[in-house]
Amino acid sequence: MDKKYLLAPGPTPIPPEVLLSMAEPIIHHRAPVFSTLFDEVKKGLKYVFQTKNGVLIFASSGTGGMEGAIVNTLSKGDKAIVVRGGKFGERWGQLCQAYGVEPVFIDVEWGRSVNPETIFDILKKDPGIKAVCIQASETSTGVSHDVKRIGEYVKKLDNTITIVDAITALGVYDIKTDEWGLDVVVAGSQKAFMLPPGLAFVSMSEKAWKFAEKSNLPKFYFDFKKEKKNQEKNQTAYTPAVSLIVGLSKVLNSIQKEGIEKVFQRHHKLAEATRTAMKALGLELLAKDFPSDACTAILAPAGIDGQQVVKILREKHGMTIAGGQDHLKGKIFRIAHLGYFDKFDIIIAVAGVEIVLKELGAKIELGKGVRVAEEILGG
Amino acid sequence: MDKKYLLAPGPTPIPPEVLLSMAEPIIHHRAPVFSTLFDEVKKGLKYVFQTKNGVLIFASSGTGGMEGAIVNTLSKGDKAIVVRGGKFGERWGQLCQAYGVEPVFIDVEWGRSVNPETIFDILKKDPGIKAVCIQASETSTGVSHDVKRIGEYVKKLDNTITIVDAITALGVYDIKTDEWGLDVVVAGSQKAFMLPPGLAFVSMSEKAWKFAEKSNLPKFYFDFKKEKKNQEKNQTAYTPAVSLIVGLSKVLNSIQKEGIEKVFQRHHKLAEATRTAMKALGLELLAKDFPSDACTAILAPAGIDGQQVVKILREKHGMTIAGGQDHLKGKIFRIAHLGYFDKFDIIIAVAGVEIVLKELGAKIELGKGVRVAEEILGG
Repeated sequence: MDKKYLLAPGPTPIPPEVLLSMAEPIIHHRAPVFSTLFDEVKKGLKYVFQTKNGVLIFASSGTGGMEGAIVNTLSKGDKAIVVRGGKFGERWGQLCQAYGVEPVFIDVEWGRSVNPETIFDILKKDPGIKAVCIQASETSTGVSHDVKRIGEYVKKLDNTITIVDAITALGVYDIKTDEWGLDVVVAGSQKAFMLPPGLAFVSMSEKAWKFAEKSNLPKFYFDFKKEKKNQEKNQTAYTPAVSLIVGLSKVLNSIQKEGIEKVFQRHHKLAEATRTAMKALGLELLAKDFPSDACTAILAPAGIDGQQVVKILREKHGMTIAGGQDHLKGKIFRIAHLGYFDKFDIIIAVAGVEIVLKELGAKIELGKGVRVAEEILGG
Repeated sequence: MDKKYLLAPGPTPIPPEVLLSMAEPIIHHRAPVFSTLFDEVKKGLKYVFQTKNGVLIFASSGTGGMEGAIVNTLSKGDKAIVVRGGKFGERWGQLCQAYGVEPVFIDVEWGRSVNPETIFDILKKDPGIKAVCIQASETSTGVSHDVKRIGEYVKKLDNTITIVDAITALGVYDIKTDEWGLDVVVAGSQKAFMLPPGLAFVSMSEKAWKFAEKSNLPKFYFDFKKEKKNQEKNQTAYTPAVSLIVGLSKVLNSIQKEGIEKVFQRHHKLAEATRTAMKALGLELLAKDFPSDACTAILAPAGIDGQQVVKILREKHGMTIAGGQDHLKGKIFRIAHLGYFDKFDIIIAVAGVEIVLKELGAKIELGKGVRVAEEILGG
């Protein structure tokens, strides 16, 4: 027997009934049945995004949505603040540079959350800056940024928008797109949406659409205005990823049934249990402040290679967690708790870490982490 | 009972065993098992593309692959011949214009194949033209263009490449990418590859990669050089559409088992049977020359609305075929025969058309088309 456990921050596990819905014979995207489905899905996305505005759907991974966010709102030579506190913060910078937008980098130590005041100071000194590009949850470090405060500040500025990568945040913890004034919010199917990778979602505020009117960057596949026109009529400009949209409708029904507040509470409890269990084992979290409820990054104990933890868990125990990226490779390992996760997923993640760290010679008391996790999760 | 029959040119039906393979628990794209799968899939794609060069895989619909083909090989201000003989020919033009490439249009009547000499004459007069953008099979009209002759001609030119949309041609009829010197060839998952939409495939010749070195158009998500570097190591730059790649490996195994020559023969026979049956019913094909083996476009008889044929087939008989696009809307209907199609799919398509045309008052002898189809398909 070779039983598998997927506990990485995307792709995340998919509910069996959703997998089976996507295995039904494919429907044609120009048939009325697809339009009805698309209309439902749009409503469900608005609910999860907490927005009254439309949420665009693309056949691409999340990065495609991030590219669209830049090329549809900014113009050549524009300046954009880029909060660079992890691998995905770097991606905003690369995207800006690829299209001739000038990034104004705020470098944040990997494992720290940005101080919003730093952003506000830069905006005060240079009100010509067009956008603040940031992650709601920086998956590479397990840290969240305070997009609420940043959104509420930028909301008052006429000349600047917020562009938020919420790929691992949306549907995990509270992101009030409209209330906080988040102008562009990007999400992806393979995270809290419990689907295979292949769909990107993007919401745009009225203010962002005004920016779109002036944007002169080239675009075609990720042309938001064209998609908006089509998707308002329950169609897409180019062939949509039909089977994923079928799965999406199932998932959105399930999220709406559970209720978004309960979804957030569940994630928070799972994250808290994970963090507390790791600390009980004497391990240190990478996140020094504002740990994300999507995923927990843990420093490998002295003398132990984080990549070995990942490798042995996978090869010997059938469990997939994530390692560190770039300069964090070998220094950390990451446990996800977003999407189709419940208490016993966290129990086995903690048990897996205990078993492997012990095996690698770390001073670990087996069961100690699980015990505190049970205390939190049992209630 | 509400049994459905999908006979449209994409999405096309998916073999049940492929649907079920995609319903297996999702695997992590950074795990070795994914890399092994990806390596297999790359080999299978080379087989179908008939190329020794790598075939890049993107999480997007085919249009994303078309965008990549332009932005990775051309530069601002370059001229490109665009053969415009249908909706997808128009798309090449729109794509060029979106990125500041100047299209040199060759307008071809919808339903006709381009005369390759017209292309050669323009290239002789203006050797500065960098690319010939064309469809191998123009799905909107059911016509194929002679990409063999065009490829073999352009192959000899240092300064020009061929960029071929083979989305509904590849895996349907013979496209010898390397032998004919086709520099960039684009395909998509939801056609002869028998998968849901969501994957684009692109092959690049050595000559095309030389063009890529000089290309200055902006790109990020569809950055071919970055993807090549990653995909050579059996990874992707951004999260791949994992479940579709799992399905792709199944499909490629099946195509290799059948043998590509047999796949072509099967499609040709199905197409011939469809065309002959329609003519036997007294109907006229839109394709005046070089009908495509992927899909047959049929002119609605005088006084009958082609959209009505599509609508009644769908609503009353559960059968999805395609109507006409843009100015052909109402004038034609289209029957697909690409991918997971066998003889009895054609029999029911012909029967469906006979039943509905009769119902709409056309002078149709029931069973006449089916009889000639059986003659061809039975052998």
